[in-house]
Amino acid sequence: MSERPPEPISDLGFARVDHDREARNGVPEVVFGEGKRAEQISAIASRLLARHQRALVTRVDETQAETVLRDHPEGHYDPISRLLWWGQAPQQLPGSAAVICAGTSDLPVAEEAAQTLEWLGVHAPRLNDVGVAGIDRLLAHREALTRADVLIVVAGMEGALPSVVTGLVNSPVIAVPTSVGYGASLQGLTALLGMLSACATGMSVVNIDNGFGAAWQAAGILRL
Amino acid sequence: MSERPPEPISDLGFARVDHDREARNGVPEVVFGEGKRAEQISAIASRLLARHQRALVTRVDETQAETVLRDHPEGHYDPISRLLWWGQAPQQLPGSAAVICAGTSDLPVAEEAAQTLEWLGVHAPRLNDVGVAGIDRLLAHREALTRADVLIVVAGMEGALPSVVTGLVNSPVIAVPTSVGYGASLQGLTALLGMLSACATGMSVVNIDNGFGAAWQAAGILRL
Amino acid sequence: MSERPPEPISDLGFARVDHDREARNGVPEVVFGEGKRAEQISAIASRLLARHQRALVTRVDETQAETVLRDHPEGHYDPISRLLWWGQAPQQLPGSAAVICAGTSDLPVAEEAAQTLEWLGVHAPRLNDVGVAGIDRLLAHREALTRADVLIVVAGMEGALPSVVTGLVNSPVIAVPTSVGYGASLQGLTALLGMLSACATGMSVVNIDNGFGAAWQAAGILRL
Amino acid sequence: MSERPPEPISDLGFARVDHDREARNGVPEVVFGEGKRAEQISAIASRLLARHQRALVTRVDETQAETVLRDHPEGHYDPISRLLWWGQAPQQLPGSAAVICAGTSDLPVAEEAAQTLEWLGVHAPRLNDVGVAGIDRLLAHREALTRADVLIVVAGMEGALPSVVTGLVNSPVIAVPTSVGYGASLQGLTALLGMLSACATGMSVVNIDNGFGAAWQAAGILRL
Amino acid sequence: MSERPPEPISDLGFARVDHDREARNGVPEVVFGEGKRAEQISAIASRLLARHQRALVTRVDETQAETVLRDHPEGHYDPISRLLWWGQAPQQLPGSAAVICAGTSDLPVAEEAAQTLEWLGVHAPRLNDVGVAGIDRLLAHREALTRADVLIVVAGMEGALPSVVTGLVNSPVIAVPTSVGYGASLQGLTALLGMLSACATGMSVVNIDNGFGAAWQAAGILRL
Amino acid sequence: MSERPPEPISDLGFARVDHDREARNGVPEVVFGEGKRAEQISAIASRLLARHQRALVTRVDETQAETVLRDHPEGHYDPISRLLWWGQAPQQLPGSAAVICAGTSDLPVAEEAAQTLEWLGVHAPRLNDVGVAGIDRLLAHREALTRADVLIVVAGMEGALPSVVTGLVNSPVIAVPTSVGYGASLQGLTALLGMLSACATGMSVVNIDNGFGAAWQAAGILRL
Amino acid sequence: MSERPPEPISDLGFARVDHDREARNGVPEVVFGEGKRAEQISAIASRLLARHQRALVTRVDETQAETVLRDHPEGHYDPISRLLWWGQAPQQLPGSAAVICAGTSDLPVAEEAAQTLEWLGVHAPRLNDVGVAGIDRLLAHREALTRADVLIVVAGMEGALPSVVTGLVNSPVIAVPTSVGYGASLQGLTALLGMLSACATGMSVVNIDNGFGAAWQAAGILRL
Amino acid sequence: MSERPPEPISDLGFARVDHDREARNGVPEVVFGEGKRAEQISAIASRLLARHQRALVTRVDETQAETVLRDHPEGHYDPISRLLWWGQAPQQLPGSAAVICAGTSDLPVAEEAAQTLEWLGVHAPRLNDVGVAGIDRLLAHREALTRADVLIVVAGMEGALPSVVTGLVNSPVIAVPTSVGYGASLQGLTALLGMLSACATGMSVVNIDNGFGAAWQAAGILRL
Ligand SMILES: Nc1ncnc2c1ncn2[C@@H]1O[C@H](COP(=O)(O)O)[C@@H](O)[C@H]1O
Ligand SMILES: Nc1ncnc2c1ncn2[C@@H]1O[C@H](COP(=O)(O)O)[C@@H](O)[C@H]1O
Ligand SMILES: Nc1ncnc2c1ncn2[C@@H]1O[C@H](COP(=O)(O)O)[C@@H](O)[C@H]1O
Ligand SMILES: Nc1ncnc2c1ncn2[C@@H]1O[C@H](COP(=O)(O)O)[C@@H](O)[C@H]1O
Ligand SMILES: [Mg+2]
Ligand SMILES: [Mg+2]
Ligand SMILES: [Mg+2]
Ligand SMILES: [Mg+2]
Ligand SMILES: [Mg+2]
Ligand SMILES: [Mg+2]
Ligand SMILES: [Mg+2]
Ligand SMILES: [Mg+2]
Repeated sequence: MSERPPEPISDLGFARVDHDREARNGVPEVVFGEGKRAEQISAIASRLLARHQRALVTRVDETQAETVLRDHPEGHYDPISRLLWWGQAPQQLPGSAAVICAGTSDLPVAEEAAQTLEWLGVHAPRLNDVGVAGIDRLLAHREALTRADVLIVVAGMEGALPSVVTGLVNSPVIAVPTSVGYGASLQGLTALLGMLSACATGMSVVNIDNGFGAAWQAAGILRL
Repeated sequence: MSERPPEPISDLGFARVDHDREARNGVPEVVFGEGKRAEQISAIASRLLARHQRALVTRVDETQAETVLRDHPEGHYDPISRLLWWGQAPQQLPGSAAVICAGTSDLPVAEEAAQTLEWLGVHAPRLNDVGVAGIDRLLAHREALTRADVLIVVAGMEGALPSVVTGLVNSPVIAVPTSVGYGASLQGLTALLGMLSACATGMSVVNIDNGFGAAWQAAGILRL
Repeated sequence: MSERPPEPISDLGFARVDHDREARNGVPEVVFGEGKRAEQISAIASRLLARHQRALVTRVDETQAETVLRDHPEGHYDPISRLLWWGQAPQQLPGSAAVICAGTSDLPVAEEAAQTLEWLGVHAPRLNDVGVAGIDRLLAHREALTRADVLIVVAGMEGALPSVVTGLVNSPVIAVPTSVGYGASLQGLTALLGMLSACATGMSVVNIDNGFGAAWQAAGILRL
Repeated sequence: MSERPPEPISDLGFARVDHDREARNGVPEVVFGEGKRAEQISAIASRLLARHQRALVTRVDETQAETVLRDHPEGHYDPISRLLWWGQAPQQLPGSAAVICAGTSDLPVAEEAAQTLEWLGVHAPRLNDVGVAGIDRLLAHREALTRADVLIVVAGMEGALPSVVTGLVNSPVIAVPTSVGYGASLQGLTALLGMLSACATGMSVVNIDNGFGAAWQAAGILRL
Repeated sequence: MSERPPEPISDLGFARVDHDREARNGVPEVVFGEGKRAEQISAIASRLLARHQRALVTRVDETQAETVLRDHPEGHYDPISRLLWWGQAPQQLPGSAAVICAGTSDLPVAEEAAQTLEWLGVHAPRLNDVGVAGIDRLLAHREALTRADVLIVVAGMEGALPSVVTGLVNSPVIAVPTSVGYGASLQGLTALLGMLSACATGMSVVNIDNGFGAAWQAAGILRL
Repeated sequence: MSERPPEPISDLGFARVDHDREARNGVPEVVFGEGKRAEQISAIASRLLARHQRALVTRVDETQAETVLRDHPEGHYDPISRLLWWGQAPQQLPGSAAVICAGTSDLPVAEEAAQTLEWLGVHAPRLNDVGVAGIDRLLAHREALTRADVLIVVAGMEGALPSVVTGLVNSPVIAVPTSVGYGASLQGLTALLGMLSACATGMSVVNIDNGFGAAWQAAGILRL
Repeated sequence: MSERPPEPISDLGFARVDHDREARNGVPEVVFGEGKRAEQISAIASRLLARHQRALVTRVDETQAETVLRDHPEGHYDPISRLLWWGQAPQQLPGSAAVICAGTSDLPVAEEAAQTLEWLGVHAPRLNDVGVAGIDRLLAHREALTRADVLIVVAGMEGALPSVVTGLVNSPVIAVPTSVGYGASLQGLTALLGMLSACATGMSVVNIDNGFGAAWQAAGILRL
Repeated sequence: MSERPPEPISDLGFARVDHDREARNGVPEVVFGEGKRAEQISAIASRLLARHQRALVTRVDETQAETVLRDHPEGHYDPISRLLWWGQAPQQLPGSAAVICAGTSDLPVAEEAAQTLEWLGVHAPRLNDVGVAGIDRLLAHREALTRADVLIVVAGMEGALPSVVTGLVNSPVIAVPTSVGYGASLQGLTALLGMLSACATGMSVVNIDNGFGAAWQAAGILRL
């Protein structure tokens, strides 16, 4: 007697967990933690872990994390990247995605990108605090930059680093503006608009502070 | 007696043509036509053609094109995409980059992307006028969408098409907002901000009306 | 001896309660709770309950609710929708207004709409977490969508869901942008502008997070 | 031998005419004229007229209209509303949608709404130049306002008229901001934001200058 | 032996108290409390009281007020208007300035205006909660409005009340936008821009929440 | 047999001329010329002249003026202020309203104010090109400034002049920002926002380039 | 009998020429040409030339220039920089101010700076088209950069060049954003905000396209 | 045996301390304290003090300062300017940079500038609370203003002070907008845009609240 295929969607009332996404994308749905109550995250995680044996939640604060980990203690939480995760990619993807950031204050976003990459099975070497105001710090790593298959470049304030990096390499660059700065930085809008206006070709841009989205895009490119 | 290597840069006074870019990126520098006088474009094209036997100028209006083509008659000009070009990529890249657009008015930007791809040696199938207000027009092509290696999705007004397409495919999507619309469309800013805020993961964004930049990014991905 | 008609307005000094509104609109004035002190809400509620035997207050936080309910304990408070109410519509309106929301984080706004509808005597079936990034979740309910007489569609981030829904149905759609999202979402402005720019015809828009206003408009349409 | 059903979509390459929309919505697709070349409009109109015997094009300037009418001379063009149309609704809808405008300069948008309503088979009485700076002009028509089943209220500058009208009636109001004004009017954004922030309940809003969209929504309400 | 005239300015290092202003303007300098430490306010008040026997401080929170009143206990503090003052105008000005507000939440700004007027010696009758959504509440007071010599009209959200009032009266109107509202209200910017764009002539505008500035302007007009 | 009173409103279909305004405000309705066709202006002027023997139209360009003056040749047109008028105030108002402007490029707005004042019967001395970058040019006229009963201060770019003038005088100041400037001037928004944020008390603000509105407000103050 | 000193100000009615400025600043007043009629410029130039024997007018278009030069034929006009000038600085200032620009389209602004410097007596070496997308073009001139006493750095689009240059030198940098770019460049606002947010210290910023202002500031620094 | 030169960069993983900057700029790298954890600041300070015997950290709150000073007790912290520093400039620079501020609430920014100047070895006389609303307070110090070699002018709200000061002096002015104000002040954006639009020549602008950057620029000018 034939078995029923598992339901493509778990309807929890307040959420509809899309199990098909693993089939379509190779990775299960990722949960956006901000604005969700800890019990909601916990319930969604239950469904994801039961079906896929791994899960990732982004933008989780320490209080949420603690509550959810009480229900699912085998997970990991990093307070810098604010990621909460269980399990790993079943296999490592070929190539590497370098994560480069302009200043120390951009680290949380850079780490969100780098740790998401690692959860997706991508090698993610870091290069931190190489902003354009001291260009020699960047140029000292010129060769390493050209070795990466994809580059994620994270910067706040005026957001100039991706333009310079894109001009130095041949591989695709994904730029991530951050909300670091004050006054005319407009909570990251200035860096965002600057990256979109960049005269360098070969880069595209994701939302302010969206290290997660950049990592996902980079993994998608490496999976080709 | 040994030959001197060719100069890496042609200094024209008003411009510095970067010949090294072909070595670094595999493609010679592309000229941004807007705000340049026809004679300036002509002089830069002379240097590029002499050294690389091909050249591309973007955002060229019909008057500029006519003057430049008088000096370099072996070129091609398309008034829809506003591209002016000489020569082609020496060889075809593997894979394909689909160019999808939401409405008829988005065609100039979609064609800028598609013709740039072809000049770069990339196969670029089109799917026009499949905006989300009549979703069945898009769903009828679901299979074709999943076959593409990279997708460039062009939309104005609310710019919702890339979110939907990204949810249907596994390949990287590059979203291009256009300045089509009126009132609350804010000359393309609304579509731009919407694409950056999209809940779909696996897409990144380029500047408003920047079909060229999307094509360049797509070719860079296929070149990996 | 003939009776004096009741005063059309109760003047409380800090507020002028408009009792005529029930005659004009069929429903008594609704109180905007934000920025009012609990005692002010209580005093207004007293007048409304004395005259109309029902009342609704929106945007009430838990502290305000507790204080007001101490004076008027026969009321109900829902911390998700932040609504506080007494009584119900004297009779049920014909037809139904479906409330559809894009993500779990949009639930508070969707519930503000749905519970306001119910207080107004309107049947309000819900469909939650059917955002466009996984379009099949929405399409699975295509028939249910076409059955609704009016649709309230709630979405944050890029706010694309109302465009898609409007294209699937023939009934009027009222779109509600939410402040869910970060960075380029601009606290809901991006979703708002996107909905106003939508290429789908047959929808209109209310303020960011204004589930209440959408419900009122929907009830007004069903009352025709 | 059985006949093949007509194609649901006409693919013209640059456009995909959605013939199904008449089945779904009772009205064939309307063409957005702005940014289309006259020949494109003509080709789309050919397909629409062949299948549905009526068509409407919005935002058409006099030069476009002249060229298109040479191919399809049985149409009508109004230079105030900038509408171009052929045929009419097969039957009149019950009820009426009043079109009220604040100033003489708002007339083009008000007429776009009113003539679209008439093309859709809706009775559309007008009330012009009744802005709030001389409130008695409006109050003189209070009774007529309450008689309308739906009201479309058009205003530029500070856009206060819809708030006042909504407070006077019980029927649904659709507010249309216009780009009339200067300086702080911000090309209609101020009126738009004001209408969305209105303290009056029972109104919803469409895009700046979008008389067409308001009419469509009003007709959809009357069709219920 | 002749006496030295008093110094026109008291230099406190962190502040320069302008004693001449009473001679020039008839009223001593008023202190902006926001962003000053309580001791700074106290020190400035000392100088003002010593020389002029009266003083006014605006935008004072309850903690600041308590500390300052410990040093200068003969003052008054109102937590609604956030004004702190000592003494009164030496004589009453002729005429009256009516203070009209649209909603209960606008009261703090309206009271800042009304109490400043009273401190300046101006009769300030109030009319509260007469927003345009229930226009009859306003029209019931039409005669009282025309009796006022100057009108200060306070409104948040869409800020439509001043346009309507200006159309009803012949006296100058000073409009005060408030930060009351949410979403599209943009913290009062929408009301501000709307008032500036108003089609009614005979009104001018002050900053968001600036009840104090409106009162000062009104008193200046009455002093003519 | 008693005579019928004249109609309070002339309904021209496209406009409703408010004749009562002269009774209410002492001055007939003024016509906003921008966006009206010359024939519309002519028809409105006919009604105004027949009833009130004077009329004013603002923001009229030279082509409109020529056409209208052909129908009503007894009028005057000034191409600097863009005002078109017939007749004058029946009597001179007491006092004076000084019109002060910062730079030569602000003259059109200053003249719109000054000539409107004169049409309203107000004495309007001018002081031109006294911007704050050369403060001695202003201070040389300090005494004249204090003599004026009301001051209209016109400035573009950073709009600092009204703050300085308000600090020098005791009379009410009406500030008019202009659209003069480039880049960060944002078409007058910067001057507008600066004037609203001014630390000087005793001034209020009208819309960008609205010399007419400032004059009206000044006349209303003098009429008290 | 003693001679009267020359008037410090020439009052032309529409303008007040500030002759004292040469005494105060060492240079006579410069005329802002935009928005002035050619005859006004001519009249101002007459006064300046009579008293100071030199004059500079900025932002002059070709039609204005032609008319003015007919009256004062000994002047010079450059259509790139849009400067019109007569005479020169009486002596050369010590040191040099390098003018560096990112792209060919920024040339008009760079030339406005460089030619203003020359008119002020400053040596102004140029370095054109060295934008950050090809950083080696800039680094090739590293030594020349460090030799300049002041640097004016002109860039549009994302405006990243000044950050990089400031990091390479020890001398003060004045950054000039230009309106070059499209879409997210927002007519130069993005470059402006980026420069203000720059993480490099040792630079300050002037208005969009304000090459003149940067030159003036640079000359002031060299004059110390 | 020859000694190895010290490393130009200390790589701390989360930060890359640029020791070369002292050689290039004469001053070691300054640390931006905002968004860094106290331990990170401490670690960076350790490296700076070991190599350069002085260090400066900006935007430090009291909690951070306390922790860092526990590790490095020989430093100084000022809670007004929020600066934390060790050591001083090895020698005094010639000349002086006056720091002028408009109001008492601007003091923190003015002190950030003045104390940074002193740490850099620059004489920094202050002139506080001389805003343009009482221009005589400023004019009383006219001579002192002209004596300064560079002027830093700090102002919030409408930010008019730098325009006036620049018109009074011949030396370079650096304008610093502050976030002081409310409503239309837009957190300092209005002052920023006003300063950039100023009609006075001879001034340039730094970011909102960036007293540090202004001081650095001033010192760079004095070092010439
Ligand atoms: N930090 C993030 N930024 C943007 N999108 C995210 C983020 N985290 C998760 N997502 C996406 O948000 C969607 C889930 O939203 P939700 O259903 O509210 O959990 C999924 O499509 C995720 O891929
Ligand atoms: N003036 C208008 N404003 C907004 N949408 C419109 C307007 N005119 C037509 N449309 C809609 O635009 C779509 C057609 O766009 P297109 O395919 O570019 O002709 C249809 O869905 C129409 O209902
Ligand atoms: N330049 C102007 N700026 C603002 N309002 C004006 C202007 N000119 C006339 N108005 C006002 O606009 C209204 C007339 O508008 P309309 O009915 O369109 O002619 C009257 O209330 C006038 O007082
Ligand atoms: N308050 C400030 N505003 C702007 N830039 C600063 C400030 N304080 C320090 N910096 C600069 O920021 C850079 C150091 O940033 P970080 O590496 O994150 O410490 C150095 O180039 C400093 O000159
Ligand atoms: Mg660093
Ligand atoms: Mg279409
Ligand atoms: Mg979800
Ligand atoms: Mg009118
Ligand atoms: Mg109320
Ligand atoms: Mg001048
Ligand atoms: Mg170039
Ligand atoms: Mg003060």
